[in-house]
Amino acid sequence: MGGLETPDGYHPHTSESLKAYLAEVENTASRLGGREADWQVDEVGDGNLNLVFIVRGPSGGVAVKQALPYVRLVGESWPLPLSRAHFEHLALTEEARQAPGLVPQVIHYDETLALIVMELLEPHIIMRQGMIKGIVYPGFTEAITTFMARTLFFTSDLALATADKKALIGAFADNTALCKITEDLIFTEPYMIVENNRWTAPQLDPYAAWIREDGDLKVAISRLKIKFMSEAQALIHGDLHTGSIMVTEDDTKVIDPEFAFMGPMGFDVGAVIANLLINYFSQIGHEAAPGERDAYRTWVLETVEGVWTGFRLKFLALWAENAAGDGYPAPLFDDAHGAIRLAAEKEAYMDRLFQDTLGFAAAKMIRRILGLAHNIDLEWITDETVRATAEARTLTLARDLMVNTADYRSIEAVTAAARRQNAWVPELGR
Amino acid sequence: MGGLETPDGYHPHTSESLKAYLAEVENTASRLGGREADWQVDEVGDGNLNLVFIVRGPSGGVAVKQALPYVRLVGESWPLPLSRAHFEHLALTEEARQAPGLVPQVIHYDETLALIVMELLEPHIIMRQGMIKGIVYPGFTEAITTFMARTLFFTSDLALATADKKALIGAFADNTALCKITEDLIFTEPYMIVENNRWTAPQLDPYAAWIREDGDLKVAISRLKIKFMSEAQALIHGDLHTGSIMVTEDDTKVIDPEFAFMGPMGFDVGAVIANLLINYFSQIGHEAAPGERDAYRTWVLETVEGVWTGFRLKFLALWAENAAGDGYPAPLFDDAHGAIRLAAEKEAYMDRLFQDTLGFAAAKMIRRILGLAHNIDLEWITDETVRATAEARTLTLARDLMVNTADYRSIEAVTAAARRQNAWVPELGR
Repeated sequence: MGGLETPDGYHPHTSESLKAYLAEVENTASRLGGREADWQVDEVGDGNLNLVFIVRGPSGGVAVKQALPYVRLVGESWPLPLSRAHFEHLALTEEARQAPGLVPQVIHYDETLALIVMELLEPHIIMRQGMIKGIVYPGFTEAITTFMARTLFFTSDLALATADKKALIGAFADNTALCKITEDLIFTEPYMIVENNRWTAPQLDPYAAWIREDGDLKVAISRLKIKFMSEAQALIHGDLHTGSIMVTEDDTKVIDPEFAFMGPMGFDVGAVIANLLINYFSQIGHEAAPGERDAYRTWVLETVEGVWTGFRLKFLALWAENAAGDGYPAPLFDDAHGAIRLAAEKEAYMDRLFQDTLGFAAAKMIRRILGLAHNIDLEWITDETVRATAEARTLTLARDLMVNTADYRSIEAVTAAARRQNAWVPELGR
Repeated sequence: MGGLETPDGYHPHTSESLKAYLAEVENTASRLGGREADWQVDEVGDGNLNLVFIVRGPSGGVAVKQALPYVRLVGESWPLPLSRAHFEHLALTEEARQAPGLVPQVIHYDETLALIVMELLEPHIIMRQGMIKGIVYPGFTEAITTFMARTLFFTSDLALATADKKALIGAFADNTALCKITEDLIFTEPYMIVENNRWTAPQLDPYAAWIREDGDLKVAISRLKIKFMSEAQALIHGDLHTGSIMVTEDDTKVIDPEFAFMGPMGFDVGAVIANLLINYFSQIGHEAAPGERDAYRTWVLETVEGVWTGFRLKFLALWAENAAGDGYPAPLFDDAHGAIRLAAEKEAYMDRLFQDTLGFAAAKMIRRILGLAHNIDLEWITDETVRATAEARTLTLARDLMVNTADYRSIEAVTAAARRQNAWVPELGR
């Protein structure tokens, strides 16, 4: 493995070797049914970081995810520790406990091979792909707000005794390599000239330069970075974009929590909102005729509103019923006056979380346009003028959200700004 | 040990057993000189939590601190893990690296016995005792600001790569029992009726009730508690009051960092300022005639100002020279405009840290008057009316500092308020 660190017994599987391996895994062989020779294995290869196999047998299927000691997309020149499989498994376990039914079931975990066997999600597709096609997901808001409210609330100081929360902090403290990717690719590189960056050039050149020269924005992103590195609020998924969500019209599953650690809650909520907004702005590139996707645009912005509103209500409802943590101790507020004061503070807490959410959402929007990893929502728009138009609209909204965060007092203020921005015709570089 | 958890081989030392133990410790026996029979051991017993022995021999002395599996002051009914010796040793090692000469030298550490042998600080005394006598420490401000600026800056995101900082977070994440003491005794119990609390009654009764019924204050202390539990800014000492500082007129040493963990920097700076302010208000009880200690009062408030001003300048100087951390990455601000913008942000960063400092200082002041553990600055005042007068002045300043923190824009605003408060004659309970 070219000098990359792997434990004894680790080897990356191929489609062939995987069959023999799975034949020995009791829960898996029985789920697939038949015998090894009846199974079909496909390396689907749509992960940036890992090997992903789909295995089907006569009675059912499984998905197998195996970490490589490097970034799959780049190769051995970018080493990445296998421990990410350990953290993904740990996070999946915790998420399944807090938000049952909203993550894939783990069938088998092999620490040495850095390999997780999971239920095969069928007929689910990656949500981002569905949204590019303009598919409405009526159950999405309900599911994602439940997922976020429950996983974030129940791993926070509001629900946990401090020793239990610190145990989570300790358990995820070593997931530094994955955090570092976020710190570099989201919070740093899009704001400077580095080889990794790319954008739609020359159309977007003036906007990329505008971002790089914006001192207020660079201070704002640096404050968010400090918050990301320092504020251990709750167990966050850490990569909660629409590519980490698999959906049918009725079902929603959150996958790929290998970036999980104890961080700021707003990073997860912001990731969802950012990716919805990116998709909203991208619709211009996916409609056959102008206005064809207007109803879909409406649904996307309603979803943005529903995600925040639903998350907020569910989080507050959990807080009302499960305030067992060491934060805001109940005995301090157990008289009539105290209850009123605490209720007001809960609103203020959610307002602060909303501000965090908008800042992190903005960071996620900017990195997808100027940084290394882009979204197919925008990448699949082949007309560069159209794509750059969508991108410039996304960027300018994101810049305002990050620098003038406090001006946005409600999620409706955000969707109203998105609507205005979507009508703006940017002057593009040539 | 009555069901308390201790590892095989652990046993608490007596003055006699300690001699035989130290005779086998090379660095120690040679430092003491002579033979076992020539050594004198005193259990000084001035720690609330641990056994502390002073050992003297013909050539020199050592101090020996051993953790018990319970709180010494209370007994076996309040268990406390021996691991605190591990964290104290870890913190002493890191502090010695970052702030050489400002902590006692560790001569020997025994993990099984939870025992640390340190240099004997002579002729140092506990600073709090000196301040009660009205002794001026000309070197204190210089030393404590160096200690705080260096230990906090060099363990923060401003100096460290994220992986190194997360390693520190992980290394201290298990020090939960000690953090929990702080969370309960400082951030919770003084604001409610619990058996642990005591105050000068009946003189202070109306003020204790006023604090317990103050909804704004209880929200403010709860926000500070959340910050204490969540914000892993830097390696903090965690108990930096004037009882954890040993001094001569020329030398200052910071001792007892067993509460250390990765927490908010303002907690340490606030602890120092709080304990200086408590001493300031206590002077009325220690002067032979009114006004006798006026010059000392002036020195104490100058020290409060000097502590913040000196800390701020040194922290900024370290930031200017050692910005090697992942926070505020230098390449984002490397042009002329960026440099100006970053300079302004550094001021804003220090302003936020100042606000944290005042909030935590207030929390430390209140707990010493209404909570379990009091300060001898106030406790040694035998006239209860005088003591309660000093305490009411401290409490009312602390309440305003915590709730109206943003009104205090400079450390001079704080010392001016202290001066005003010290002229106020509170109406006491009877």
